[in-house]
Amino acid sequence: MKKTVCFGEIMYRLSPPGYTRFCQTQTLEATFGGGEANVSVSLANFGCDSVYVTKLPNNPIGDGAVNELRRYGVDVSHIARGGDRVGIYYLEKGASQRASKVVYDRKGSSISMAEKVDFDWERILTGADWFHFTGITPAISDSAANITMDACMFAKKMGLTVSCDLNYRKNLWKTDKAGEVMGALMPYTDLCIANEEDAGDVFGIHAKESDVSGGALSREGYMEVAEKLAARFGLKKVAITLRESLSASDNIWGAMYYDGSDYHFSRKYPVHIVDRVGSGDSFGAGLIYSLLEGAASCAAVEFAAAASCLQHSVEGDFNLVSVAEVMGLVKGGGSGRVQR
Amino acid sequence: MKKTVCFGEIMYRLSPPGYTRFCQTQTLEATFGGGEANVSVSLANFGCDSVYVTKLPNNPIGDGAVNELRRYGVDVSHIARGGDRVGIYYLEKGASQRASKVVYDRKGSSISMAEKVDFDWERILTGADWFHFTGITPAISDSAANITMDACMFAKKMGLTVSCDLNYRKNLWKTDKAGEVMGALMPYTDLCIANEEDAGDVFGIHAKESDVSGGALSREGYMEVAEKLAARFGLKKVAITLRESLSASDNIWGAMYYDGSDYHFSRKYPVHIVDRVGSGDSFGAGLIYSLLEGAASCAAVEFAAAASCLQHSVEGDFNLVSVAEVMGLVKGGGSGRVQR
Amino acid sequence: MKKTVCFGEIMYRLSPPGYTRFCQTQTLEATFGGGEANVSVSLANFGCDSVYVTKLPNNPIGDGAVNELRRYGVDVSHIARGGDRVGIYYLEKGASQRASKVVYDRKGSSISMAEKVDFDWERILTGADWFHFTGITPAISDSAANITMDACMFAKKMGLTVSCDLNYRKNLWKTDKAGEVMGALMPYTDLCIANEEDAGDVFGIHAKESDVSGGALSREGYMEVAEKLAARFGLKKVAITLRESLSASDNIWGAMYYDGSDYHFSRKYPVHIVDRVGSGDSFGAGLIYSLLEGAASCAAVEFAAAASCLQHSVEGDFNLVSVAEVMGLVKGGGSGRVQR
Amino acid sequence: MKKTVCFGEIMYRLSPPGYTRFCQTQTLEATFGGGEANVSVSLANFGCDSVYVTKLPNNPIGDGAVNELRRYGVDVSHIARGGDRVGIYYLEKGASQRASKVVYDRKGSSISMAEKVDFDWERILTGADWFHFTGITPAISDSAANITMDACMFAKKMGLTVSCDLNYRKNLWKTDKAGEVMGALMPYTDLCIANEEDAGDVFGIHAKESDVSGGALSREGYMEVAEKLAARFGLKKVAITLRESLSASDNIWGAMYYDGSDYHFSRKYPVHIVDRVGSGDSFGAGLIYSLLEGAASCAAVEFAAAASCLQHSVEGDFNLVSVAEVMGLVKGGGSGRVQR
Amino acid sequence: MKKTVCFGEIMYRLSPPGYTRFCQTQTLEATFGGGEANVSVSLANFGCDSVYVTKLPNNPIGDGAVNELRRYGVDVSHIARGGDRVGIYYLEKGASQRASKVVYDRKGSSISMAEKVDFDWERILTGADWFHFTGITPAISDSAANITMDACMFAKKMGLTVSCDLNYRKNLWKTDKAGEVMGALMPYTDLCIANEEDAGDVFGIHAKESDVSGGALSREGYMEVAEKLAARFGLKKVAITLRESLSASDNIWGAMYYDGSDYHFSRKYPVHIVDRVGSGDSFGAGLIYSLLEGAASCAAVEFAAAASCLQHSVEGDFNLVSVAEVMGLVKGGGSGRVQR
Amino acid sequence: MKKTVCFGEIMYRLSPPGYTRFCQTQTLEATFGGGEANVSVSLANFGCDSVYVTKLPNNPIGDGAVNELRRYGVDVSHIARGGDRVGIYYLEKGASQRASKVVYDRKGSSISMAEKVDFDWERILTGADWFHFTGITPAISDSAANITMDACMFAKKMGLTVSCDLNYRKNLWKTDKAGEVMGALMPYTDLCIANEEDAGDVFGIHAKESDVSGGALSREGYMEVAEKLAARFGLKKVAITLRESLSASDNIWGAMYYDGSDYHFSRKYPVHIVDRVGSGDSFGAGLIYSLLEGAASCAAVEFAAAASCLQHSVEGDFNLVSVAEVMGLVKGGGSGRVQR
Repeated sequence: MKKTVCFGEIMYRLSPPGYTRFCQTQTLEATFGGGEANVSVSLANFGCDSVYVTKLPNNPIGDGAVNELRRYGVDVSHIARGGDRVGIYYLEKGASQRASKVVYDRKGSSISMAEKVDFDWERILTGADWFHFTGITPAISDSAANITMDACMFAKKMGLTVSCDLNYRKNLWKTDKAGEVMGALMPYTDLCIANEEDAGDVFGIHAKESDVSGGALSREGYMEVAEKLAARFGLKKVAITLRESLSASDNIWGAMYYDGSDYHFSRKYPVHIVDRVGSGDSFGAGLIYSLLEGAASCAAVEFAAAASCLQHSVEGDFNLVSVAEVMGLVKGGGSGRVQR
Repeated sequence: MKKTVCFGEIMYRLSPPGYTRFCQTQTLEATFGGGEANVSVSLANFGCDSVYVTKLPNNPIGDGAVNELRRYGVDVSHIARGGDRVGIYYLEKGASQRASKVVYDRKGSSISMAEKVDFDWERILTGADWFHFTGITPAISDSAANITMDACMFAKKMGLTVSCDLNYRKNLWKTDKAGEVMGALMPYTDLCIANEEDAGDVFGIHAKESDVSGGALSREGYMEVAEKLAARFGLKKVAITLRESLSASDNIWGAMYYDGSDYHFSRKYPVHIVDRVGSGDSFGAGLIYSLLEGAASCAAVEFAAAASCLQHSVEGDFNLVSVAEVMGLVKGGGSGRVQR
Repeated sequence: MKKTVCFGEIMYRLSPPGYTRFCQTQTLEATFGGGEANVSVSLANFGCDSVYVTKLPNNPIGDGAVNELRRYGVDVSHIARGGDRVGIYYLEKGASQRASKVVYDRKGSSISMAEKVDFDWERILTGADWFHFTGITPAISDSAANITMDACMFAKKMGLTVSCDLNYRKNLWKTDKAGEVMGALMPYTDLCIANEEDAGDVFGIHAKESDVSGGALSREGYMEVAEKLAARFGLKKVAITLRESLSASDNIWGAMYYDGSDYHFSRKYPVHIVDRVGSGDSFGAGLIYSLLEGAASCAAVEFAAAASCLQHSVEGDFNLVSVAEVMGLVKGGGSGRVQR
Repeated sequence: MKKTVCFGEIMYRLSPPGYTRFCQTQTLEATFGGGEANVSVSLANFGCDSVYVTKLPNNPIGDGAVNELRRYGVDVSHIARGGDRVGIYYLEKGASQRASKVVYDRKGSSISMAEKVDFDWERILTGADWFHFTGITPAISDSAANITMDACMFAKKMGLTVSCDLNYRKNLWKTDKAGEVMGALMPYTDLCIANEEDAGDVFGIHAKESDVSGGALSREGYMEVAEKLAARFGLKKVAITLRESLSASDNIWGAMYYDGSDYHFSRKYPVHIVDRVGSGDSFGAGLIYSLLEGAASCAAVEFAAAASCLQHSVEGDFNLVSVAEVMGLVKGGGSGRVQR
Repeated sequence: MKKTVCFGEIMYRLSPPGYTRFCQTQTLEATFGGGEANVSVSLANFGCDSVYVTKLPNNPIGDGAVNELRRYGVDVSHIARGGDRVGIYYLEKGASQRASKVVYDRKGSSISMAEKVDFDWERILTGADWFHFTGITPAISDSAANITMDACMFAKKMGLTVSCDLNYRKNLWKTDKAGEVMGALMPYTDLCIANEEDAGDVFGIHAKESDVSGGALSREGYMEVAEKLAARFGLKKVAITLRESLSASDNIWGAMYYDGSDYHFSRKYPVHIVDRVGSGDSFGAGLIYSLLEGAASCAAVEFAAAASCLQHSVEGDFNLVSVAEVMGLVKGGGSGRVQR
Repeated sequence: MKKTVCFGEIMYRLSPPGYTRFCQTQTLEATFGGGEANVSVSLANFGCDSVYVTKLPNNPIGDGAVNELRRYGVDVSHIARGGDRVGIYYLEKGASQRASKVVYDRKGSSISMAEKVDFDWERILTGADWFHFTGITPAISDSAANITMDACMFAKKMGLTVSCDLNYRKNLWKTDKAGEVMGALMPYTDLCIANEEDAGDVFGIHAKESDVSGGALSREGYMEVAEKLAARFGLKKVAITLRESLSASDNIWGAMYYDGSDYHFSRKYPVHIVDRVGSGDSFGAGLIYSLLEGAASCAAVEFAAAASCLQHSVEGDFNLVSVAEVMGLVKGGGSGRVQR
């Protein structure tokens, strides 16, 4: 069993039910989510020995986050406890032309106030094969950025593969700071994952011609961006997710994976969306799992794309699907016939 | 801040959850709605000083209606209290080929039994810029029709702009009575709003060729109807909403606005429907707001169409969207990307 | 009023709400369903004197099943009481590329352990016009198969029309046993109903060219299957439902009816799915009702297809629509306009 | 099996969930209830052939009422269909010192507008043993009072036992009119049921000393009231329920039954209230059932008191308990130990 | 109509449904509450022109708080907008021996970061009769304490009556700091409200003999505390609520009011608790309203105690009861009979 | 950290919400529970290394049970997977005089069909301090009884302390068989736990005078039963829970512990019941934890009684309380004051 370690912030995800708006609701659906936690749960579902590292307060909300991760089989034994609060993200689901809306309330969370001393990376990473983080974690505070750097250095030294999902969040930092901090982390990174906008936002790397909001970036554009990313930072591998947003209800979803020599494009899936948040993370987890299992580049990107295709049909941040379900879709499924 | 006054009936809207049918449910979602109240809430959301006038009983259900309007910022200080009951409309949401179903239970409502003495229009309309009513209000009772006439006359005398949404309801009156009563109100009306069937039902004004149920009325047909309406009643402006019903789940939505000289057609939006009731009202409110803000005809109809496009994605009668959200759609949005 | 009798197993249908997965939910929606019970409720809705026969335990869950049938007007006076348990089927609704998932927990149910002595078919069938069963009932136990045979023999002897929906369930029996048992029941059957896979699974009857999972079986293929079925068993009539599964959210739905001389294809409906389970049963019920009412072959298959089209938009196994609603769709509806 | 017939109004009962107030809620629990309907369901639960007679509109809400009665085994074949609406009663549950609150919205209901011609009493009452009505039905309209008189006269002529629960509703009529109308119906009544206030409100019959709101009426007071009632109208039997209201959460409940010669007091039950509405009806049904079964006076009042004691612990108007459960309480239960 | 002004923090109140614990729930009931906001809503319900002052962020959660206050008739026109977040308090309801649990997550809320310049007290207080604050507001930040002082000084200068509920919160500050800051605010205070522990926690004022956790403080003890409080700070009036906690489900509730010359004890109410949070605030609001209406001391404390008795039976922080309901309880009600 | 091992059956617990009855509900609350699983979760909550052993099917319902245990920190690595189904128990909550009702549907569950080979007790028990089982497990099947015996023998051999809760279930076996099987297991048992009826049902051990259903067994009676139990089987320790059932809503709860030399009676708690199922298990877990921690007899029984007192206020079978919360109650709490 492969062992993976993810580090980041898990938040309380509070969401009005169905398609009601914030101003209408008197109840909130309360789950947990966050980039790296989502990856961690996915990897546990896929059968990895999945460790998730963060800091959470010693109160019932912090306990709730731990319980939720544990429920899905994540190893929570390295989570530091203390600090003030669990960060929150309020999510209002969109539909048709009305976009989903996220209100962050994560300032002062325990992980944003954590210090290096909270994490003994040598111990945490012992026996692990892979370390994953996203661009959100270094963005939440300077201290979190330092801890991330720490983790990356240990991971490299201890021979782990390191992956990073750029995941630019404009409300957490500006593009120049993001470029600087993420640029310093790239040398430790083997696999860089990005969506259609991240490379541009963080590193100013654009394809020559693109119309991102329309989702009309050409195949050549994606290849160009991957190549530039790899070249600038000496990355071995780059993966880019491809989303065409027809509306908040319907998207077309696929991905490209550059393995250092070739470009592999996955099938494109027309998805009718149940819950869109965390789809990038489910792609990352699918790719990490596939590569850890020794899949060929082509198979790996198909697995990852299929996993994240399915995630669009699952409520919540977490991608609660099994390897068998993903493989079923890869092997030609998707017609959605009832499985009795 | 512009001040608007709407007059009509607000009902208790009782609806089985999700797509369950009346015969299945043991709970009802309980909100409030009604043509002019919907316009009133929309105008309050857009930042107008929005006054809503009706009569409601002195009981907790009447209080609930007042509270719901007040919650969204509507001025409720001119609502008369008394009478027997809040009218009800039961709504079962359709999907795919199954149509939504409305069961009215509004007989004997306080507003239908109201008398002229309940409303001091001179006081109510003081300082207001716009008065709006729909064809539903004069249909609920002769007394309500008389009060509407009263309001229109004062509004005209006091220099307000008057708009009327024809909104024909076949279970409230017959077409000949509707034609007579509405015909008497048209001289006081500056802007007449209709959907693809109203002009025919109320005034027998049809385009030469049309297939309304299929939604296939031609652009020329709509222009012809608007012209005839304007000509017969000396109306300054006519707006017509254009709905192509593909199914209870998917519609195509747009609108035309005739400003007395030119015909302006909005973009057409393919909408995946969350809740369809009140979309005409949200169009009316968007148009009133835009015109009050001095928008050009073309911009006004685009704002109104975009506002009502978004309303299809909002639960309930009320269009709980902001000017910024509408403008976002007008300016090329609609891809539904998550707003973080 | 025509009198119909259906015999089979009604199960407790336990389903996570909305699109949540089994592993996420803390509540289950609890209704009842099962092939022949679904037909029975449909027939009661259409105004038949609809008798449903099964065996249910003497406990509150058994009472619940009785109540639910009674609620929709089914005659429950011939249900035997006793035995251990109500069978369960857990249903997780799919969406987009994620298929719906059924987990059966029906072993040891009262009906599967029932004996011949539990049912006095002569008394039950007196005055009835039609007897219906499906291939599920003989599959649940040898005893249930024997009782089914008993019922069929009495039905034939007493002059009823007998219909059978093949409904192959691979987790209940193997294809060879199914072929043997169902083959013995066919001689008593007047009308055989099947979906695109059943004839192949149960009797090894295939069209020459077909790609079932893609739903691309040609018109000729369906005609060929119907002809072979009729020929092998001397059936008078064969009906086949035609489903093209685009995804778990969107299907295209239609049917073919072979009346012994001609092939009648219904309209095809693009359905946006609310709940897919029981659509075959709603087709069967529509066909039985139509034929009992003396409809022409062409009208009968259109009624049945429209009925089952609407069933896709109704929550639960039962098709809670009226004759008027079905006829509305047959006569050119389907645009889903609000019915006020 | 004994056959009973109840006649009255069944209403839609709309209630905010839990202990929320009308002004807070966005959902309503939607069930059905009404004095005689409650009795009818109770009698069906006890195994009687229970017929319920009313008039309901031809719309889905009317269908819902029919379905709900049918679900619990009531014979609905004599319900007239037509008219405008199902009456509504809004119910807000109280707790501790906050009283439950009922808002009636029943004007213009189908039954209140029904006419004699809607009911063929000779046919309806054929084969029946018992006819039951309450003081609510003649109060809803003059026409309803006339129909009630009609039913009583036929019942008497056809040899049925007739019972009446006085059930004074001050918002439906004044005490003098109530006294006059009910006084005319008493001669047809064998058994009169009342609570601690009804006899005073309707007929001005009071005990010499009483403090009803405190629930402190003495045993002698109740005996006196029963005797006066019996004497004035020549009643054979009188039953009076005894409620001591400690708070909206806790009551003490018992009853007295005067069988024409002796006074029988039941046990007193301290009840912790789940839902109080319909407890008088559950007492009436218990008494009717017991007497029909030939129970001794003493046993009958104990059965009725125990049945209505249990009803306080059941959600909704209907008393969904079995004879076995009632007998369990009569025979010394009430400790509430888990029944496995 | 009397005009009142309350100043403080309104929080998002997130609560697992029913009696579920934090670690179990997947939904949260989402309302709003906070000491002074609760008083403000109560005063609006009682018919006052009730102004609530705070600072809330410009996001949908802030909008939600505004809407909720507006819904109940509070004047929200003086609420400052800006800052980062709405403070949260998580509430888990206790039962029997298990205590309710509050987890505060209010650090960094907009009001805690507000500055003097956000509030123009001269304008806000113009025309007002009464200013109310609690010991929570100065505890949330030094800046909030300064703004409170500002408000008090203006209120005094402008002739308003000022009331303060001590409301000690041990997780916001230590007793010595509380004593210092609150001590500085007392000179501006006319009426000081406290519960059985506050005076001791904040000012070290204890009765000679007391056993607070057992609720067994004697009448003399309360009189002694009130007298000491009044004496130390020259207060005109002191009110103390008296709670005997039998369990989380049952309390005995009453109050004492010292009007500067006499001590007035209210009735004691045995309350079966629906929701306990905000009961002190409902007492304060009842007292303020009564005194503003010119009630005698004795009547005022009875009104306030009855109002807060009822609040224990209402879900949420807000006391959604009317003057008529409170007066009904004062005048001898409390038996909880259904009000039809 | 002490390590405990529990062995038994965990079932799906399906329960109508609130106080609704089976026949009313359309949703079921779905949790998991079962004697030994409840103990296991409690021990994990108290901080033990708690291993739970059972067999569960390889389907999503089996996964759900695993997830729920894992969520609360139970070690699930020794759960065997396979077999047909998760057993079910349907639970209807009682109130006041209406008793809670359990309908078992557990026949054919995976654990009841498990075989010795499914469990390698030597490996499972390695490093463990305590083994716990209840009388339910040997009752579900002969095979389960054999496995239990296996486990007990290994536990004894490996030096663990063994505890058994008699937990007689009359619907699983008869008293004579129970006596025989349990009698054979007693020699391996160190601590025997029973409620007021078990010793009589299983072993025919009664106190001379008792009135169990009334809960009025005297202190002497309990002492006598404990002594007899200890004497017959050479048990070191016996614990008996003491329940006085006032109603389904209110109980008085306490316990007695006989440590081989002395009898220790705990405090008695008047409990207002939220959920009664699992209270015996929570007592057992409290006692095991306390004894493992080296508590004195007197302290141990107080801890156990307080733990189970609190469990009555927690929804579900599991006792989701912490050591701190239990100690708070032991040390004199229970007044239920809000903990902020």
